[in-house]
Amino acid sequence: MSAAEVEARLGDLPDWGIDQHKLFRHFVFSNFVDAWGFMSQVALLAETMNHHPEWSNVYNRVEIYLTTHDADGISEKDFALASQIDSLL
Amino acid sequence: MSAAEVEARLGDLPDWGIDQHKLFRHFVFSNFVDAWGFMSQVALLAETMNHHPEWSNVYNRVEIYLTTHDADGISEKDFALASQIDSLL
Repeated sequence: MSAAEVEARLGDLPDWGIDQHKLFRHFVFSNFVDAWGFMSQVALLAETMNHHPEWSNVYNRVEIYLTTHDADGISEKDFALASQIDSLL
Repeated sequence: MSAAEVEARLGDLPDWGIDQHKLFRHFVFSNFVDAWGFMSQVALLAETMNHHPEWSNVYNRVEIYLTTHDADGISEKDFALASQIDSLL
């Protein structure tokens, strides 16, 4: 996906940006239980879609980076997963 | 906990080291399902102990950093959680 295509698609995902050439979103929850509940939903989504995030958690905070190693960059799969993640919230 | 104390306690946790002034261990599993299963166990441990890791996951890989913000460094709580994490494996 070209940089211009990525930029255009980002219009549909206002809470996501680009960081380190990956699709990125930062989430803040009330506490660890809420953050973990969200992550558990994302884990099931990711496994079902066979497309997994690069992500980290510190207590109530979650950072998700999406990229497609096979495509050496951001692909349709990343936008599809990002959209599904947003729909969890 | 002093640097000397940390060094001494690390003798009981041969798979852990120090990185960025935190107790650190890197784990590699067969796939995402196994990595996530492990993380789910750690999440329950952490919530039970009220001491949460800084951690990240990429597919079959998990990195865990333990530190105690209240103590501004590594404390007994970090070694206790690390030991419990090791016992999951």
